[in-house]
Amino acid sequence: MDPAVAPIDFRTDPSRYKHWKLSTENGVAYLTMDVNEDGGLKPGYKLKLNSYDLGVDIELADAVHRLRFEHPEIGAVVIRSQRDRIFCSGANINMLGLSTHDHKVNFCKFTNETRLAIEDASSQSGQTYICSINGIAAGGGYELALACEQILLADDGSSAVSLPELPLLAVLPGTGGLTRLVDKRMVRRDHADFFCTTAEGLRGKRAREWRLVDQLIPPSKLVEQTQKIAEEVAAKSSRPKDAKGIALPTVERQIDGDTLRYANLTVEIDREGRSAKFRLNGPSSAPPDDVHAAGAAFWPLALAREFDDAMMHLRLNETEIGTWVLTSQGDAALVEAYDAVLAQNADDWLIREIVLYWKRTLKRLDVSSRSLIALVEPGSCFTGTLLEIALAADRSYMLDGVFEGSNLPAATVRLTDMNFGPYPMGNGLTRLSTRFLNDPGHVETLRDQAREPLDAGAADEAGLVTFTPDDIDWEDEVRLAIEERAGFSPDGLIGMEANLRFPGPETMETKIFARLSAWQNWIFQRPNATGPEGALKLYGTGKQSKYDRKRA
Amino acid sequence: MDPAVAPIDFRTDPSRYKHWKLSTENGVAYLTMDVNEDGGLKPGYKLKLNSYDLGVDIELADAVHRLRFEHPEIGAVVIRSQRDRIFCSGANINMLGLSTHDHKVNFCKFTNETRLAIEDASSQSGQTYICSINGIAAGGGYELALACEQILLADDGSSAVSLPELPLLAVLPGTGGLTRLVDKRMVRRDHADFFCTTAEGLRGKRAREWRLVDQLIPPSKLVEQTQKIAEEVAAKSSRPKDAKGIALPTVERQIDGDTLRYANLTVEIDREGRSAKFRLNGPSSAPPDDVHAAGAAFWPLALAREFDDAMMHLRLNETEIGTWVLTSQGDAALVEAYDAVLAQNADDWLIREIVLYWKRTLKRLDVSSRSLIALVEPGSCFTGTLLEIALAADRSYMLDGVFEGSNLPAATVRLTDMNFGPYPMGNGLTRLSTRFLNDPGHVETLRDQAREPLDAGAADEAGLVTFTPDDIDWEDEVRLAIEERAGFSPDGLIGMEANLRFPGPETMETKIFARLSAWQNWIFQRPNATGPEGALKLYGTGKQSKYDRKRA
Repeated sequence: MDPAVAPIDFRTDPSRYKHWKLSTENGVAYLTMDVNEDGGLKPGYKLKLNSYDLGVDIELADAVHRLRFEHPEIGAVVIRSQRDRIFCSGANINMLGLSTHDHKVNFCKFTNETRLAIEDASSQSGQTYICSINGIAAGGGYELALACEQILLADDGSSAVSLPELPLLAVLPGTGGLTRLVDKRMVRRDHADFFCTTAEGLRGKRAREWRLVDQLIPPSKLVEQTQKIAEEVAAKSSRPKDAKGIALPTVERQIDGDTLRYANLTVEIDREGRSAKFRLNGPSSAPPDDVHAAGAAFWPLALAREFDDAMMHLRLNETEIGTWVLTSQGDAALVEAYDAVLAQNADDWLIREIVLYWKRTLKRLDVSSRSLIALVEPGSCFTGTLLEIALAADRSYMLDGVFEGSNLPAATVRLTDMNFGPYPMGNGLTRLSTRFLNDPGHVETLRDQAREPLDAGAADEAGLVTFTPDDIDWEDEVRLAIEERAGFSPDGLIGMEANLRFPGPETMETKIFARLSAWQNWIFQRPNATGPEGALKLYGTGKQSKYDRKRA
Repeated sequence: MDPAVAPIDFRTDPSRYKHWKLSTENGVAYLTMDVNEDGGLKPGYKLKLNSYDLGVDIELADAVHRLRFEHPEIGAVVIRSQRDRIFCSGANINMLGLSTHDHKVNFCKFTNETRLAIEDASSQSGQTYICSINGIAAGGGYELALACEQILLADDGSSAVSLPELPLLAVLPGTGGLTRLVDKRMVRRDHADFFCTTAEGLRGKRAREWRLVDQLIPPSKLVEQTQKIAEEVAAKSSRPKDAKGIALPTVERQIDGDTLRYANLTVEIDREGRSAKFRLNGPSSAPPDDVHAAGAAFWPLALAREFDDAMMHLRLNETEIGTWVLTSQGDAALVEAYDAVLAQNADDWLIREIVLYWKRTLKRLDVSSRSLIALVEPGSCFTGTLLEIALAADRSYMLDGVFEGSNLPAATVRLTDMNFGPYPMGNGLTRLSTRFLNDPGHVETLRDQAREPLDAGAADEAGLVTFTPDDIDWEDEVRLAIEERAGFSPDGLIGMEANLRFPGPETMETKIFARLSAWQNWIFQRPNATGPEGALKLYGTGKQSKYDRKRA
């Protein structure tokens, strides 16, 4: 991290939004986009025509997240624009042109996660997203619409949806557009081909016939009809209309040189070793009787928010820190007790949200382009929910026995009900099922061992950890693994990890992070897009790109 | 194509092999690798240690293909090495270092297709591949083994399997290795992580326990045991042991300036328009009574061989020709009659091979990184098997009516049984099911229309073609589509097409061409691998790469 540059901060709340207005009425939330041209995250570009940068998306992500916790009464969310004749013109091109490769890639990853969070809210949380388009929805603007369950388009002869990235910029729609076209909306591939090569996009009848939008509405009735549709959807939602939300205050943290401190998490950066050591702390007391009263202080929720913030911070602000070393510390029995609260109250709306949040946070870990090494040491509490973190790692080391001269008892790991379903990966399988793809029966066997503390021998036998060195070998073996990782090419590691982490079935989600993102990253690296004569650089200058014509 | 450089020729036969020996005994074929160091396809590198370039793989692909047609009696194929203590050291690094980006990418694609053809032979054709490793199987060498159904490893303390690409070269194993590790052999991801970051690889007991190999055999018994295992497998094969194979003579072609002429296919290159027009000719007479006697002259087989050769030629030798325009000419009723022979004799071993060959050829079209535009004109015969080509296109134009002044009747398309199952795409679905992912019932409805000639109106109604201009609009609309394509960035088009062509389920095959290849292409473009200080460039010089450490 360059100490002269303030880090990108992912913490915000509606009182600080520059680009969105959030209001609620009759069980419906309205997220209204009104991007402040001069409110870009970095200098050098203006956010014209409701175009966005990472800062705009950080607010959107915050709103989507907050609605789930703070507004149990909301059953539908309308995304719309404050502007006349323009819904959203997508990611800001000048911002992209000025950005480094790693910023572009990390920006796309975050926006993809936000759109998947929108879909998760619709499908899992009873907050269904509806997009109401009153003008041009271009590129990322239409991709935002595609993340909603219903797309309403003004039928005024000019409102249109488009994906002009390829014809205008020589890049792909970077936020899942291609995948959602053919896999979610199941648009015929030849129609999709025509649509994605037609810069001005489609409108009216053809847009509906080709399933690019769901409904055409006369412009004068768009606001009113949208409200009616959204209220009908909200009325059918399973969310508890009379419940009281919990407030999500700002996540407190302290950046102290190379140490990042939260209440339940510490991250220490070793710049020379290009690694960061996460220490997740277990709870300090038994679960409270009233989770709702505890609110954001409830340990699983507090830790998830901190862990999520730390990952986003490191991804964008500490790109040279390539290895995340994952450790935990605390009382395994207490973690187990909290897991029991989560498992036994799955029907409570707040518990459901907390579990879904952990699911998303763990997925964020899965798709972080960092090498992940878990260390299971004496004093650790890799139990249930926290054990998922070790299972998400590329490999894990568990000390067999104790450290000489330490009175900490030998490390154990424990499975809980939370390891057997509530936290599927992007591929739709649990981390255990993914790990034992070869032997689904083994996962069933492990159920019998749930809640037992497994020492290194038993954990190895169960296949839950990779290596179990004793205290004589531990230091060398662990140091070597971390050092070795720092010596490899980051690009090679990113590609390797993306290929090894997601065996088994593919979903729209894994397709977005695999095929779509990988091709986009390739294109972002090609001179035809990002070279000095590339389309992304020349956009708006009136100059024409000269493409290298060779087909790779 | 540079006229000063001889084009890469994909046509070969065992009498011309430089790198492989093919022998047969007791129902088993032995493909023995003995790469001629000085036999590289291009100057500048030596193929040491049984390393390979495209030329070596062209021979392998020919052998795999030929065994199916020429040797119905063969039920198992052993891949092994002639060399002492070395099985195969993978793709030649110096060749990769000297190659252009597009050659590297096209080379990897071809080798991937060859390995998939090996797996297709094992799973569909009763020719099961067994790999017998007598030394080091490194990188592409181990990936070749992974494409086989059984991997036998000499247990001699030094024979080992490895994927050293990441640690040594900062690239990925480029021929499906990562995918096959976790998806085919279902190696645990943490084991795979350790294996892929350990340059020297694994041997003996751990290699077997981690499922990297199937069997360890004492070195003195390797030859004899391999033979025994292969003969047992062959004995259980469904292949007709007493049948007589058909000979596959060299595919005749003539390169005449920008025209490529085969007996049943003509390809005309328009260099200015950066497009190539394929004209596939229908059969000139009714199907013969005896397909076996007709052999390689049987129209469907002859055309498949020509079409396949033309695609391989254009891919590697004509990289600037970015659009393939697909047309056909002939008698639709005759095509239908040939399709009936294929459908009604599916149990005949030769017919089975011809159909499987069309399946692979159509898949080669699907993954060709070229824009595909089908033109359905008067006089065309897009029926059944040939209609698959139009369905593989990114979009199609069908003339509604006739051309003024022409006496050719209006174009029709016809479905046959061959459109409903025998030619699945890489995603496991037929092109019809992929096209109508949104409406599986529609595919069933189309069955009722099989064998009916559908004019432009009916074809449009059925969703089989994209646009149906009349003769007034035809020329402009088609010309514009082809010209427009030539104006777009080739990289953007490649990425877009790769994302739109394969909706629906993913398979190991689609994962290899999507996630794995896209990441590899990205890495091939990154300075850490291919820059002047990149690992691929510096390999063997003793110099150390200095990596850009930013994680994208």
